[in-house]
Amino acid sequence: MGSLPLPESAINGADADVFRPLDPDDVRTYLHKAVDFVADYLQSVESLPVLPSVEPGYLRRLLNPSPPTSSAPFDVAMKELRDSVLPGTTHWASPNFFAFFPATNSAAAIAGDLVASAMNTVGFTWQSAPAATELESLALDWLAHLLCLPPPFMSDGATGGGGVILGTTSEAMLVTLVAARDAALRRHGGAAGLQRLTVYASDQTHSAFFKVCRLAGIDTANVRAIPTSAATSYALDAAALHRRMEEDAGAGLVPTYVCATVGTTSTNAVDPVGAIADIATIFNAWVHIDAAYAGAACICPEFRHHLAGVERADSISMSPHKWLLTCLDCTCLWVRDTGRLTDSLETKPEYLRNDVTDSGDVTDIKDMQVGVGHRFRGLKLWMVMRTYGAAKLQQHIRSDVAMAKMFEDGVRADARFEFVVPRNFALVCFRIRVCGDMTEEDADEASRELMGRLNGTGKVFVAHTVVGGRFVLRFAVGSTLQEERHVRGAWELIRKMTGEILHGRQP
Amino acid sequence: MGSLPLPESAINGADADVFRPLDPDDVRTYLHKAVDFVADYLQSVESLPVLPSVEPGYLRRLLNPSPPTSSAPFDVAMKELRDSVLPGTTHWASPNFFAFFPATNSAAAIAGDLVASAMNTVGFTWQSAPAATELESLALDWLAHLLCLPPPFMSDGATGGGGVILGTTSEAMLVTLVAARDAALRRHGGAAGLQRLTVYASDQTHSAFFKVCRLAGIDTANVRAIPTSAATSYALDAAALHRRMEEDAGAGLVPTYVCATVGTTSTNAVDPVGAIADIATIFNAWVHIDAAYAGAACICPEFRHHLAGVERADSISMSPHKWLLTCLDCTCLWVRDTGRLTDSLETKPEYLRNDVTDSGDVTDIKDMQVGVGHRFRGLKLWMVMRTYGAAKLQQHIRSDVAMAKMFEDGVRADARFEFVVPRNFALVCFRIRVCGDMTEEDADEASRELMGRLNGTGKVFVAHTVVGGRFVLRFAVGSTLQEERHVRGAWELIRKMTGEILHGRQP
Repeated sequence: MGSLPLPESAINGADADVFRPLDPDDVRTYLHKAVDFVADYLQSVESLPVLPSVEPGYLRRLLNPSPPTSSAPFDVAMKELRDSVLPGTTHWASPNFFAFFPATNSAAAIAGDLVASAMNTVGFTWQSAPAATELESLALDWLAHLLCLPPPFMSDGATGGGGVILGTTSEAMLVTLVAARDAALRRHGGAAGLQRLTVYASDQTHSAFFKVCRLAGIDTANVRAIPTSAATSYALDAAALHRRMEEDAGAGLVPTYVCATVGTTSTNAVDPVGAIADIATIFNAWVHIDAAYAGAACICPEFRHHLAGVERADSISMSPHKWLLTCLDCTCLWVRDTGRLTDSLETKPEYLRNDVTDSGDVTDIKDMQVGVGHRFRGLKLWMVMRTYGAAKLQQHIRSDVAMAKMFEDGVRADARFEFVVPRNFALVCFRIRVCGDMTEEDADEASRELMGRLNGTGKVFVAHTVVGGRFVLRFAVGSTLQEERHVRGAWELIRKMTGEILHGRQP
Repeated sequence: MGSLPLPESAINGADADVFRPLDPDDVRTYLHKAVDFVADYLQSVESLPVLPSVEPGYLRRLLNPSPPTSSAPFDVAMKELRDSVLPGTTHWASPNFFAFFPATNSAAAIAGDLVASAMNTVGFTWQSAPAATELESLALDWLAHLLCLPPPFMSDGATGGGGVILGTTSEAMLVTLVAARDAALRRHGGAAGLQRLTVYASDQTHSAFFKVCRLAGIDTANVRAIPTSAATSYALDAAALHRRMEEDAGAGLVPTYVCATVGTTSTNAVDPVGAIADIATIFNAWVHIDAAYAGAACICPEFRHHLAGVERADSISMSPHKWLLTCLDCTCLWVRDTGRLTDSLETKPEYLRNDVTDSGDVTDIKDMQVGVGHRFRGLKLWMVMRTYGAAKLQQHIRSDVAMAKMFEDGVRADARFEFVVPRNFALVCFRIRVCGDMTEEDADEASRELMGRLNGTGKVFVAHTVVGGRFVLRFAVGSTLQEERHVRGAWELIRKMTGEILHGRQP
């Protein structure tokens, strides 16, 4: 901000004071107020309705339709945040949040993110952000250690592996798919070969995968969603994958990319990574592992077997912003050969050239992601591991799984419910079981009604899925403030409301 | 976090205390410490070398190569941040930072971002984050008001327009390009028509555009980088664009997308938006305006003419994380018809279905971006406008431009320098002029040497570009803590070092 005198016309009604948006005293005052707000919020969030009872458009009726001309004390924005924004918030931080997957968080992560916001470095080349580039790389190596990823995925070796922290799993899928696509096109006749490339995943794979295929220009007709069934607990059937890839190759198509999921969104199914990698190798196809949620559990030895075979995969992503106590956004992508990514993603505009990039001694962030730069994402992830350490992080996972098991035991002991799939991590999928003269459709309807009633109370928020054609409640344990009493409370509420629903159905 | 007792083996050497990563007292303590760190940092950053003198790999020599098992007091991470990370940081917050474009910031933005990190809501459907979805939409409308964007780009009308806050300009280009691509394919024979689609931009367009074309599967041979020259100050020549599009259409190709830049990265050239839109209309091609940096200036009436014709464009993006005091990441994308985006980007997995989405009353964030969800990005942008108001934001732009003009006046008055392009905003592009028996190559070399010497002092950081084949220094005014004295100080240093360089060249 300049201190040059401006003509009155340029000041346009504002007071003529010099404007200092980063005045250190203001920074200190505003931020200490914001800290007290968030600490109070976290202390009281348990008492707020998890799902708000607002209608679309509610906020526009409360706030000004157009921006103010004049400045206002910071307290005005904070008051509107408190009075208008909070009442329309779905409280992911609530211990009564059991929907989707939890967005876990921690004091260390928020602090790291705060420092990143204030330093506001922009990482695109090493030169533009040496420490941010290197701390990101170190944090990825640390997490790779915790996950027991093989050395080729680490950047501390001489194998050309490494990673990058992206915003979303979708971006991780997109950049690896594009790298695989371009490598296949180089082998198979250039751009004109695009119509021949085929890609594979199970029908339980996140919708993000199918969208990413569209983004990358893969013909929708060439995207194979391999059907799953209860026989494999909705995991990808390796034999079916093999048959489909053979069939495609036989028809002159080019199997290019397979996405294996460790912990599907719908039911936490785990695709057989090793078997998939073995099959993909036959066809020279890229194997990406999407372990967005369940990857976090693999820092515990007792869950690590879910990643068996990762040493034969080309890339793996997981999101500490889901189950590893790091606030959004933080999706870690590791690749065995960063050169395969940068072959597709590298740009060399003159205005970003510098001696270090030209030396080839570094891999610039700009060459491993969709965008050019990103904020200092590595700081919060490193702070989480530095402050809590491996043992506490394992304890965090185990504690959530223990609570989920406790909930599962309750469901199992109650004859009114059934499971649709076995529990693998901290997600329990269950539904109301057919009883009396109910049909399966009646049980679906009763389960849906249960979800609606539960969520209408504001006391809990649970989500759903449909698997094998049946409506299923998803009860995801693990919101960071959650304790045993919240899980027990939710279970009591579920039992009570189920009783009311089934009682109301009796003739 | 559970409070269930875990077996000793599951605790694995950690102390047996319950682990509470979001304990409100810890949150308060850690964050108040982080606030004092950042306030002290901003107070002292002026005295730090802007560019650090570290070598690639420096950080790995200072920090542990693998993650600790045990937890550590938060102060340990803060000490390592201070002792190891800061000395390797390129200080974007420094008032002596004149490189690239500034990443401007403010107390209100950092506070908003802090609250977003702590609430950690995940916006994908309206249901998952009603207030975050609506505040993002309101903030975009507010900023559209400040930019005098026409009503079809706002979400408060009934025209189907609106926007989304993305992470990067690259993502804004990608989602609009894919929407344009898919619409063209629907008109021209489906997926098999991909090889016939052509896209256009000037050769000064950011490298991100050319990368995004690759990501979207546009054949590199069909990406037209229209040559520019000094005659148009390196802006896109509308007549040349028209000729090229006609030629392509005549050859049976399908002109699909034009990217116009308002304020190119290299020299801040401004493409003629209105003329480009008129031409694109003839071919039914999508026009996207990339105003990442200079769009911010258009909140001042005296700069708004650079957007003339935007009412005939399909989409426009600008990044408040560049010049509008909002920390990363915050790229605003507005589209005239959100339906054209969602046609390409919509997904409907069962596990995200809910009554409000099904009603069609809302546009979900998941259907307007690459990824599924994103953090509460609207909060910081809204807080900036709510707290500072339009007049102060205009004052901020004008003050930076006044400082850039002051610097420009100095350069103009010194016969040793020349400009390569006129200054449009707060970026001054200049070089050492040929004198005596110097060749143009000598002048390039001297200018490059000047940049190297300046940056080697740690007292300033300036960047460069090559335009018209000549090496040019880019002096970007506007880092938030910058005042007149910093610009004057940099100018004195430039004069002094230029004298030394030219003196050293004398025979």
